[in-house]
Amino acid sequence: MELVAIGTVESPLTDRAAAPKQGDEGAPEAWLVLGAGVAEGLEGVDAGDELLVFTWLDRADRSTLRVHPRGDTSRREQGVFATRSPDRPNPIGLHRVTVLAVEGTRLRVRDLEALDGTPILDLKPLLRTADER
Amino acid sequence: MELVAIGTVESPLTDRAAAPKQGDEGAPEAWLVLGAGVAEGLEGVDAGDELLVFTWLDRADRSTLRVHPRGDTSRREQGVFATRSPDRPNPIGLHRVTVLAVEGTRLRVRDLEALDGTPILDLKPLLRTADER
Repeated sequence: MELVAIGTVESPLTDRAAAPKQGDEGAPEAWLVLGAGVAEGLEGVDAGDELLVFTWLDRADRSTLRVHPRGDTSRREQGVFATRSPDRPNPIGLHRVTVLAVEGTRLRVRDLEALDGTPILDLKPLLRTADER
Repeated sequence: MELVAIGTVESPLTDRAAAPKQGDEGAPEAWLVLGAGVAEGLEGVDAGDELLVFTWLDRADRSTLRVHPRGDTSRREQGVFATRSPDRPNPIGLHRVTVLAVEGTRLRVRDLEALDGTPILDLKPLLRTADER
């Protein structure tokens, strides 16, 4: 089960400790820079769309199984699968963003808390019926 | 970027063509069978929780970049990133389920459309504020 990067995040965020924990907690605008090889896959992705962005959180600690929720040491440790910690066996990031503009294979997006240089794995449209019910 | 399976789906669903496309379209109850090595990570996951289950759709065609939405050939082809097709460069499945019971490292769940034997990659709690806003 080997992943391929379909692109990379371009963002002003470079420091994990300073980055917001969720995209609606003050994330700056960012770019999804997709590889030319997957350009065809973007047909039908337009400004205004809400997307789920899957990333590979390459600065995560994959050996972690228990964490303090949100890194708050005053909270009791929990299993990683009960939290959204980036530290986990398969550090796949899930981000809900809004597409602001599409310029070829570059997508400008709002509400992405991923760090600059983070590999992008997949984009899926938000299904209101399935993801929000 | 090499994934590890943290577990496997046990489900009556074995045929991709016959499986529902989304979990709320008639998926049967299923089991998430996690490996003993990640048992600690489940602490705090309880019956009644809503989880996002990430799977590796191992029967997908990873070379596909354009598809007919929902496999309906009467619909115009679109880029895979504008659809939820399992066929895509990184075939990561995202499933929203409700936990019905936790028995050690086995979780019985509702609304999982993944096929029997599908590798499980990650579990994350649903964040109502982030995933549903």
